Amino acid sequence: MKYANRLATIEPFYVVDVLTRAKLLERQGVDVVQMVAGEPDFPTIDPIVDAAKKALTEGKTYYTEALGLLPLREKISELYQTRYNVKVPVDRIVVTPGASGALQLTALTLLNPGDGVMLADPGYPSNRQFIRLAGGEPQLVPVSFEDNYQLTGELVDKYWQANTRAAQVATPSNPTGSVLNFDELTALHHAVTQKSGHLIVDELYHGLHFDEPCDTVLSITDSAFVINSFSKYFGMTGWRLGWMVVPEDAVPHIEKLSQNMFISLSTPAQYGALAGFTEESTLLLDQRRDVFKQRKAFLIKALREIGFEIPIEPKGAFYLYASAKKFTDDSFGVCHELLDKAHVSVTPGKDFGDYLSNEHVRFSFTTSMESLEKGVERLARFLR
Amino acid sequence: MKYANRLATIEPFYVVDVLTRAKLLERQGVDVVQMVAGEPDFPTIDPIVDAAKKALTEGKTYYTEALGLLPLREKISELYQTRYNVKVPVDRIVVTPGASGALQLTALTLLNPGDGVMLADPGYPSNRQFIRLAGGEPQLVPVSFEDNYQLTGELVDKYWQANTRAAQVATPSNPTGSVLNFDELTALHHAVTQKSGHLIVDELYHGLHFDEPCDTVLSITDSAFVINSFSKYFGMTGWRLGWMVVPEDAVPHIEKLSQNMFISLSTPAQYGALAGFTEESTLLLDQRRDVFKQRKAFLIKALREIGFEIPIEPKGAFYLYASAKKFTDDSFGVCHELLDKAHVSVTPGKDFGDYLSNEHVRFSFTTSMESLEKGVERLARFLR
Repeated sequence: MKYANRLATIEPFYVVDVLTRAKLLERQGVDVVQMVAGEPDFPTIDPIVDAAKKALTEGKTYYTEALGLLPLREKISELYQTRYNVKVPVDRIVVTPGASGALQLTALTLLNPGDGVMLADPGYPSNRQFIRLAGGEPQLVPVSFEDNYQLTGELVDKYWQANTRAAQVATPSNPTGSVLNFDELTALHHAVTQKSGHLIVDELYHGLHFDEPCDTVLSITDSAFVINSFSKYFGMTGWRLGWMVVPEDAVPHIEKLSQNMFISLSTPAQYGALAGFTEESTLLLDQRRDVFKQRKAFLIKALREIGFEIPIEPKGAFYLYASAKKFTDDSFGVCHELLDKAHVSVTPGKDFGDYLSNEHVRFSFTTSMESLEKGVERLARFLR
Repeated sequence: MKYANRLATIEPFYVVDVLTRAKLLERQGVDVVQMVAGEPDFPTIDPIVDAAKKALTEGKTYYTEALGLLPLREKISELYQTRYNVKVPVDRIVVTPGASGALQLTALTLLNPGDGVMLADPGYPSNRQFIRLAGGEPQLVPVSFEDNYQLTGELVDKYWQANTRAAQVATPSNPTGSVLNFDELTALHHAVTQKSGHLIVDELYHGLHFDEPCDTVLSITDSAFVINSFSKYFGMTGWRLGWMVVPEDAVPHIEKLSQNMFISLSTPAQYGALAGFTEESTLLLDQRRDVFKQRKAFLIKALREIGFEIPIEPKGAFYLYASAKKFTDDSFGVCHELLDKAHVSVTPGKDFGDYLSNEHVRFSFTTSMESLEKGVERLARFLR
């Protein structure tokens, strides 16, 4: 083979096929209702934008420290205090180029070639690829609504293999929006500790909850690797900024990796993010969360009426993971059909894993209520 | 070991010790002349800053395509046309999160575990780490002023090993500023092709030449992996934006990796960079290059008078790689001494490799002429 063998193991995003086809249709004048995007449809809030612009005007265009601007790490530490009442020392907070950077640093820090990481199937696709890029093996555990779509302490016990080194969860989960509560996180922590393994917790969608705020694993243990981001709650997708909280003894390793791999994080993004923690910003961001909650309520009811099965309500994020088995056993095909004939774009289950993925699709409610209503009407007309 | 074994193989930047100590001194009120920074001391030019601010005002804060904004890739393609008279199709241009992202994509695309990459010693430190992170082996070839501090076709023939898969060069080189001309690049290309290997060419400092413009390997072959950046000539270090030009058949692989690893590139940075190609911007950026040229002329003369050996003049970038053997055989120690006693910070040779590195230091002329004069005076007083 001309290029590296690992390339054959890395999966593309299957939704890109749908997106490419959607763009083609749009260029032909077709009005497509998009329900695929993994990012809020709102532009970044003004206080963040203004702070970034001010920093640029002041010539703040240089490299910063590899671990991130100290004042930003301090703000993140304060967030843990105010949001969860947990003390997280600044020293354990590492700013990263998006959660993507944090996920990559985590895999490279924890895995030797051949080491396994237990993951819920369905789950965020790139998790599997980051593990493979570090030479590791993603070990998918099928989960359904009966497990709350999450790994549990019991599943960890049951599926842990000789080469398993870590269990990785996401709360709220993409694509299901299911959440791990304090007791469930505690059980996971204990199960993983019993195996002398690492626990990786993706808290990327924290802040975007529909009822009670989510629990952080950091209120249970200092030994987990916690991934977070400015993309979702803070609405800064295009800025590429995230963070991680890691055990104290991992920091020097991660700093060394980060220096070499990234040199530095986006300076405009960091100065922008600094303005995301004020009362004014929090109010604006919480209003956006409420919009997602309204959309969720509308969409879940409408999709169930059409015949999609959504056994449990998501508790956070901005997705609905729905079984389309009433209509198809080829959800990838149905995504193309829905696009071509109903002009609605959705994400095929295939992107999120293997388990029942060909009867599932993911609906994002990252589009206006008006657009969701239009989409639902089209789906109903086409599928009924 | 609690964490992955690879961590033991990844080197930190040794200069960080010097920087940390320098900050401490500055906090104590000491005025330190910095000659370490790997970034221009000028803030990003106004047209780029203004374009980014405009994009932010317009709400351009979302993800973009994984390969980068099409208009930006088009501008990069035009740059090859106007600067080198070479046609580089947009399809082969991939925008990346800094040259760092491009270097990482290159290593992951080309190397299987155990594969070797031939590198000049001295060279940019992270190149070795990117190879290791992909499971590969950096194969350092000692080069001196007699080889123009560069790999040559002959050196490739001589040092190619059974597991060598690629040769990687930088022109202009960091830390030496030496350049590969058209004939030298051609010889390298032929030598590597004979070995059925890949050629990786870092053209990061192109545009920052002191006499004739640098040649690009793309005028010789379509098969090389070419790394570039908006950090140096365009002066956008803190924005984290770079690009690569790759063979056509590598693009789908790299797109798949980039989607998973980065999702997207900084949107403000991309809109900013779009404004870096106008006549107005080029004029401003070329003026900055001329400033570097003046500083180089001053500094090389002054350092030689003090007793540093700089056998060949750099042809580009903003560094002088100097032998301090008249003063020391412990250049790491001397860096600390220069900082503590002369209040001048320089980078130890150790960061750039093994070959004669303990008699070398790197001077950056990324500080004002006034500051360089002060630094030289202090060095002279301390060392004479």
